[in-house]
Amino acid sequence: MTERLTIALDVMGGDHGPEVVIPAALRVLSERDDIALLLVGDQETLQKTLKASGASGREHLQIQHASQHVDMDELPSHALRFKKDSSMRVAINMVKEGRAQACVSAGNTGALMATARYVLKTLPGIDRPAICTSLPTMTGHTWMLDLGANIDSSPEHLFQFGLMGSVLATAVDGNDSPRVGLLNIGEEEIKGNETVKEAAGLLSSGFLNYIGFIEGDDVYSGKTDVVVCDGFVGNIALKTSEGVAKMISHFIKREFTRNILTRIVALAALPVLRAFRKQIDPRRYNGASLLGLRGTVIKSHGGADVLAFANAIEVAAVVVKQDVPERIKSQLQAVMAERQAI
Amino acid sequence: MTERLTIALDVMGGDHGPEVVIPAALRVLSERDDIALLLVGDQETLQKTLKASGASGREHLQIQHASQHVDMDELPSHALRFKKDSSMRVAINMVKEGRAQACVSAGNTGALMATARYVLKTLPGIDRPAICTSLPTMTGHTWMLDLGANIDSSPEHLFQFGLMGSVLATAVDGNDSPRVGLLNIGEEEIKGNETVKEAAGLLSSGFLNYIGFIEGDDVYSGKTDVVVCDGFVGNIALKTSEGVAKMISHFIKREFTRNILTRIVALAALPVLRAFRKQIDPRRYNGASLLGLRGTVIKSHGGADVLAFANAIEVAAVVVKQDVPERIKSQLQAVMAERQAI
Repeated sequence: MTERLTIALDVMGGDHGPEVVIPAALRVLSERDDIALLLVGDQETLQKTLKASGASGREHLQIQHASQHVDMDELPSHALRFKKDSSMRVAINMVKEGRAQACVSAGNTGALMATARYVLKTLPGIDRPAICTSLPTMTGHTWMLDLGANIDSSPEHLFQFGLMGSVLATAVDGNDSPRVGLLNIGEEEIKGNETVKEAAGLLSSGFLNYIGFIEGDDVYSGKTDVVVCDGFVGNIALKTSEGVAKMISHFIKREFTRNILTRIVALAALPVLRAFRKQIDPRRYNGASLLGLRGTVIKSHGGADVLAFANAIEVAAVVVKQDVPERIKSQLQAVMAERQAI
Repeated sequence: MTERLTIALDVMGGDHGPEVVIPAALRVLSERDDIALLLVGDQETLQKTLKASGASGREHLQIQHASQHVDMDELPSHALRFKKDSSMRVAINMVKEGRAQACVSAGNTGALMATARYVLKTLPGIDRPAICTSLPTMTGHTWMLDLGANIDSSPEHLFQFGLMGSVLATAVDGNDSPRVGLLNIGEEEIKGNETVKEAAGLLSSGFLNYIGFIEGDDVYSGKTDVVVCDGFVGNIALKTSEGVAKMISHFIKREFTRNILTRIVALAALPVLRAFRKQIDPRRYNGASLLGLRGTVIKSHGGADVLAFANAIEVAAVVVKQDVPERIKSQLQAVMAERQAI
């Protein structure tokens, strides 16, 4: 019998709550025999939804009651202070208490980060967790961080992002020497600000396979396995990318539905368009890791659907199985030891 | 007879130099009767290329000799000091001397900015020019600045970008009250850094139609007419967008060329795909304005082809005809006067 790992789900989080999280949970359980799930949220709501899905008493699926939930626009400080029995907080507590090996939430990012940091604490040497996700590239995918947890990151922070992203790429992709690029701008005179320049020095100190500065267009070119940037810049780059992809889809759709002739062409092109869409389907990339914590917390997109949320659960399983927090911790220790030796 | 405005072209700049600039010049002259062009570069090369094009002695096309040219990777300080007779410098001199109303260059951005600033000077109250271009949106286009001229912009700089972008949108689009958005990230706890928060205060002081913070995905949604951001962030957002668009085109192409069947579908879909591509064709958006100077300088993409460079010349013509530098100057004066009155 396989030992199942347990993942706690913040069922009340996200734009859709139990409507999405429960079907996603059932989907994962039907596909995997190595995962058990702990649904955290309002017991009555959960039982009702499970019953409606014909999934009451399903094996490897337990309910943990939580009487509150964090609103999507709630201030993190407010959630931290007044929502001690929220589904988000209780799900993270489960990880802290060892009753789950990871938790997944589609809730308020700021609150999730603040709560995870407060409950689980960061690893020694890490000030704040960083948000890291994989993104499609022309040749596969790349890991990008930070995506909004840290603004005005110091050079040391950027170095730590590089290290944590590398560990993740190694753990998940089995890539022994992930190429790390530092996001910068290309204009000669003003090549980067002081922070980026200093970070480049730290990143090239020999611990990582640092390949140098990359410009924005290289995020998707396949040139790197890890893209390092400040959270303000990373968040804007990521959201801008989403905006472009949305606009392009909009234009494609508009052109293909322009008249009866183009609609017929669209019908013929449907399998091709579907194959293409699958390549950049954001749902396949859902599930960002909060790296630098003493435990595994995965952030799902707030608007995630069943497939996307199920994907975030799968990400949690990989991160746990590959022992990412422990690996980051030992890498950090190695760096600190070597720095002291110099 | 129409009075023609004269635009100086840095023929030696960009990845392709005369090969692209001269055909672009001829194209513009064949289409417009209100523009005269001044080709700045090595006289012999220009004469030879014109002769080969059968365009020697073409009306409204003059040559201005310049013995040097600025390399694409040359340090701006080096260009400024040692390339006093470069095609770029001489083209800008033409504007300074009133022999041209604008200049267009596909050369080294940093050198162009440094030289333009040194020769033409910035408008009173402006420290550095900002780079502004229009980008496609779901509903039309938007103006975004700064795209890389300024890093670590102050709140006052961001305010000035808003003002200059507004003036450009009004001048070019005839939009009397362009909506100005300030690029920020959405996470509650850390909503923006101090600079962005202060800039929001200045932008909402009543001079502009400021609509508040926008996130990255709204750049392309059509929500704003002007997007304001620091040059580091703007450059990365723009280049990342280019990267996504390139990747999407790559995937579309790959899917449509996968096998004989998909190739037949592609053939049928060609007009639709062409119409779609036209919507996001970066060549149609080529020609960024260096705003805040006492004169009109337009930066073309270094890799621009004939169509793209011709578009940059058209942008120059609009900016000159609409008297953008003068309008920015008077708007700035109005702001300063009102601030003093308070």
